Amino acid sequence: MAVVDVNTKLVGLLGNPLGHSFSPAMHNKAFETLGLNYFYLPIEVTAEDLPAVAAGIAKMNFAGYNITIPHKIRIMDCLDAIDPLALAIGAVNTVIVENGRTTGYNTDGEGFVQSLETETGIAVGGKCYLIIGAGGAARAIAMTLAFKGAEKIFLCNRTEQKAHDLAAEINTKVSPCSEVVAREPARIGAAVRQADVLINTTSVGMHPDEDRIPIDGDLIPNGLIVSDIVYNPARTKLLQVAEAKNGRIVPGLGMLVYQGAEAFRKWTGAEPPVDVMFEVVRALKG
Amino acid sequence: MAVVDVNTKLVGLLGNPLGHSFSPAMHNKAFETLGLNYFYLPIEVTAEDLPAVAAGIAKMNFAGYNITIPHKIRIMDCLDAIDPLALAIGAVNTVIVENGRTTGYNTDGEGFVQSLETETGIAVGGKCYLIIGAGGAARAIAMTLAFKGAEKIFLCNRTEQKAHDLAAEINTKVSPCSEVVAREPARIGAAVRQADVLINTTSVGMHPDEDRIPIDGDLIPNGLIVSDIVYNPARTKLLQVAEAKNGRIVPGLGMLVYQGAEAFRKWTGAEPPVDVMFEVVRALKG
Repeated sequence: MAVVDVNTKLVGLLGNPLGHSFSPAMHNKAFETLGLNYFYLPIEVTAEDLPAVAAGIAKMNFAGYNITIPHKIRIMDCLDAIDPLALAIGAVNTVIVENGRTTGYNTDGEGFVQSLETETGIAVGGKCYLIIGAGGAARAIAMTLAFKGAEKIFLCNRTEQKAHDLAAEINTKVSPCSEVVAREPARIGAAVRQADVLINTTSVGMHPDEDRIPIDGDLIPNGLIVSDIVYNPARTKLLQVAEAKNGRIVPGLGMLVYQGAEAFRKWTGAEPPVDVMFEVVRALKG
Repeated sequence: MAVVDVNTKLVGLLGNPLGHSFSPAMHNKAFETLGLNYFYLPIEVTAEDLPAVAAGIAKMNFAGYNITIPHKIRIMDCLDAIDPLALAIGAVNTVIVENGRTTGYNTDGEGFVQSLETETGIAVGGKCYLIIGAGGAARAIAMTLAFKGAEKIFLCNRTEQKAHDLAAEINTKVSPCSEVVAREPARIGAAVRQADVLINTTSVGMHPDEDRIPIDGDLIPNGLIVSDIVYNPARTKLLQVAEAKNGRIVPGLGMLVYQGAEAFRKWTGAEPPVDVMFEVVRALKG
């Protein structure tokens, strides 16, 4: 039985439905490891009820909360302030409550960056990226990379207009570093040869479709850094191909853990026990 | 570590300040004993923030909450419906949340009645009572006894006007059974001789003033049923005197446990494990 007392700081996870999130176990174990009197708990909430719930939580004993599908955009209308990066991404996944005031952040892109830098030892500034996909994860990652001084961000998406929209937003909001790559082997091949890092942000290759790969494996150059946000399986087909070509790979679990670690830091001010958080998530993934 | 998952029903304790409440430990142990996926947690909230918090909780994964000092009256403006007994008492200590709608109850008087009936074997209807005090606890107890068919309720209070006000409310709202007793030995003596049960609802005799007694011990007849809502010490001076005169005594801990048990029944629909709840509270009292 957790000892939740009057001094306990609560942290919520808001979404709907909240199925199999790793976050409660990951954060509660991290709080316990550091001896912090915090408690993380899931709170399913409908879109209609989100404003009332956000307003209530702001005045309760919450240090903050995570917010997930389908409320990452909608929550922005319920907050007192929004961090510039989250504003550029256009979505919030982490909220801090301080003295009844709420501030929204997005740690998804930051989680990706920390995972990439930790796994590979590179610094993300000044590099060239090819991102497959133009959805929410791509937005968070691309905007964060642009904020951190990426030299070039190629975007390639099945629906090309979505890639154009995102590139235009990056170029106007952050820096003119983004360019769309048409979904043709020659174009993709040229971009991936120029890239330092290839990033899959789509769900292609996710269980149970583990045989699928988001770009033709033949196009992947030797020794490329390849990152996949899919974490089930831990080594997607894309990562297997990259590894076979002596590439350095960045599995998706890291982004999941580091986005949580960054949120943990914001709620507690403490350095998150990343190793413990990885352990919990790996154990739950089974 | 408590396993709080997406199906867990939360139950709050709202008040300010929330110092040393027994309720979280008592309810969590009771939930655990019955294998119910419920979790009870304290939530300090200011008067100013109460409406926002109540509105938020109504739309979250809460089965309900307890509400304590100083919000028992103020909460009534934040609820969708109020039980008639709670309305007569003019205070709510228990709220049920169902499908986003809130209903307020008062289980303090019911807790008193269950404690009295369990400890003594009597039925409260048709009996005569002398209640010392006219504050919040007296209101809850007197109104509940009147609802349950008390024959006569004498009220005796240091500030006599407060007793008159409460008696008038009982007589108009429930039944014309209440009468004020002036704070003079002869009057009190006459009333206590007529009474089946003497009830202290004041804090007189509470630790550290354990030598004090709310009425002159010489006025207490042999064999009287005497109840004290003070639970620290477990046996107040008043109860010691009554016991020495072969009276049956009802210590204050019972009201505390049974008001919680009645709330537990409302939130869960299950029969509360009263013995376990007593054990927890006795252990915490030390």
